[in-house]
Amino acid sequence: MPVQIKAEALTATRFAPFGDVLDFAGKPDKIINQGMCGRFHNRAKVTHIDGQSGISLFDSAPRQLPYRLEMMERHPLGSQAFLPMTEAPFLVTVAEDQNGRPGHPIAFLTEPYMGVNYHANIWHGVLTPLSKPGRFSVIDRIGSGANLEEYWFEETYIITD
Amino acid sequence: MPVQIKAEALTATRFAPFGDVLDFAGKPDKIINQGMCGRFHNRAKVTHIDGQSGISLFDSAPRQLPYRLEMMERHPLGSQAFLPMTEAPFLVTVAEDQNGRPGHPIAFLTEPYMGVNYHANIWHGVLTPLSKPGRFSVIDRIGSGANLEEYWFEETYIITD
Repeated sequence: MPVQIKAEALTATRFAPFGDVLDFAGKPDKIINQGMCGRFHNRAKVTHIDGQSGISLFDSAPRQLPYRLEMMERHPLGSQAFLPMTEAPFLVTVAEDQNGRPGHPIAFLTEPYMGVNYHANIWHGVLTPLSKPGRFSVIDRIGSGANLEEYWFEETYIITD
Repeated sequence: MPVQIKAEALTATRFAPFGDVLDFAGKPDKIINQGMCGRFHNRAKVTHIDGQSGISLFDSAPRQLPYRLEMMERHPLGSQAFLPMTEAPFLVTVAEDQNGRPGHPIAFLTEPYMGVNYHANIWHGVLTPLSKPGRFSVIDRIGSGANLEEYWFEETYIITD
């Protein structure tokens, strides 16, 4: 029997060991544009060991819950942010490192207008939208070199809501 | 009588002198995640003369068409990208520089899943969503120093659809 993991609500506190939650909680840091716009300023730790940070777009097929988590990956050379271009929640899975492989995964469900930034070298599952279209803005390191490490579990996990 | 400007459909070709259009047109540059996800790779010229690029979120009050364009601004020290977190179109206004002030503005309307990246020092109007909530991911230069120049028109323009 695969181990079941219940997805919990994504919060900045709970997610802090893995990265940043980008959302509209609380007051904006600055009011700009003649009072018309709130700026939630510089909310992610964007890093790249070499190369530079760039903007890409991802269009991912949706998955559904319960979801079988078979693999996690990490990017040693830089952070990676996912910001949704739709209002649909998506699934976020992360794990602490345990001797070079992911430990027990933790699963989160986002709310609308909420993105995540995985810090460099943090184990995470691939992008898992739960509805169509699974379209996201992605800010990550652009550069050459090996920036992808995958780990396939011997025993998979089942993520439920 | 204010000069009227008709907003046109946003296309990469037409926008090229001002910046990058980020969208899902054409084929993705890479297929990743075991065939489940298309990556439209590194689609924007992200620059910062000093400091670094960071991720912020903007929450802007919506405007409506016809829209009175009274001011344009530019950021000499870096690019600025706006990627919508909703599927609603928004208004984009840009102008070529004319002796240190914006020339005749050009207006564009986006389609869903389409963002823009203004290159450094390009005159543009402030963020103008056309429906609520006006929520965007913003990638721009984080740093100190004067990175905002505003120009208020003596005679305003009216943008129509």
